[in-house]
Amino acid sequence: MNYPNGIKKPQNTSPITYSNRGMSLESDLNESNEYYREIDKAYIYKKPTPIKIVKVNYPSRDKAVIKEAYYTIPSTTDYNGLYKGRYIDFEAKETKSKTAFPLANIHSHQIKHIKNIYNHQGIVFLIVRFIHYNETYLLLGKDFLDFIEHENRKSIPYSFFQQKGYIIKDGYRPRIDYLKIVDTIIGGI
Amino acid sequence: MNYPNGIKKPQNTSPITYSNRGMSLESDLNESNEYYREIDKAYIYKKPTPIKIVKVNYPSRDKAVIKEAYYTIPSTTDYNGLYKGRYIDFEAKETKSKTAFPLANIHSHQIKHIKNIYNHQGIVFLIVRFIHYNETYLLLGKDFLDFIEHENRKSIPYSFFQQKGYIIKDGYRPRIDYLKIVDTIIGGI
Repeated sequence: MNYPNGIKKPQNTSPITYSNRGMSLESDLNESNEYYREIDKAYIYKKPTPIKIVKVNYPSRDKAVIKEAYYTIPSTTDYNGLYKGRYIDFEAKETKSKTAFPLANIHSHQIKHIKNIYNHQGIVFLIVRFIHYNETYLLLGKDFLDFIEHENRKSIPYSFFQQKGYIIKDGYRPRIDYLKIVDTIIGGI
Repeated sequence: MNYPNGIKKPQNTSPITYSNRGMSLESDLNESNEYYREIDKAYIYKKPTPIKIVKVNYPSRDKAVIKEAYYTIPSTTDYNGLYKGRYIDFEAKETKSKTAFPLANIHSHQIKHIKNIYNHQGIVFLIVRFIHYNETYLLLGKDFLDFIEHENRKSIPYSFFQQKGYIIKDGYRPRIDYLKIVDTIIGGI
């Protein structure tokens, strides 16, 4: 069984760290979502990584040790939840590229999921960090889907994010205040 | 490390089956949610079981085998998603008891979560199946929270479900059409 192509290892098992260039996007988002919960602003969680369990041992009555399991491809985006009575849904990705965000980062069923959520009046977007520029963009699902439908490309140019995306400024708490941008989106609906 | 008290083993690793009394609630819900997606009605998913990964082997570049991992306590309910532009959130449990639903089935942080979702205008509920009667009830988060606040009991009596809950009839597809009941709730808001 393979580690499916394109699946990012969960952060806590990854040997790669970017600690010398600030925290990873995932830990920034976890901290931000935790902060939003603390101040009773929004209830948005990262979904657990889907795992196919093959073998479990029970060394004693109340213990279970998973001895063989594999990462599986997620069928939805990683984050969802509730903000101001609205359904929020997004995927977050980092790229080292200076020029474009490779679409291989988003699986085809995730694209379908984004389309479904958009069609059913959920608030859906991508959060993409260009590590080289230390810039984090929120790109609305609508703009992402428009790009995919009209462009036959394997990546979304950095310039598209500059043009259509909303830059999310780094902060202290929350580290990335993406709900500030969601507010302008809700306001505009 | 313990298999935390009260955590139900995920179905696919459980040695217990109820196949002689119909499918389990979890598989009924998975089938129903799949059906809702097929007919483009709602996008509601079961969250993956949260697992703490301790050891991963990489026998080759693209393979990852999890060799040691443990079940962890979920901080939210198991199911959430989007229906008619609304945020949907619920927990589903079966009980063999004839008289009451033991509250040990719902962790304290799940109760807190249900409260948060209710306060922020999400549609939140429990789906509880009394295996003995082969009856499945939807109990609104509001009624569940009312019970917990006013009663100092370790279980919710079966009669409370009969009185306050909505019975969900078995069907062919979907097997349990809980959104029919959500429709009456949305209509009443």
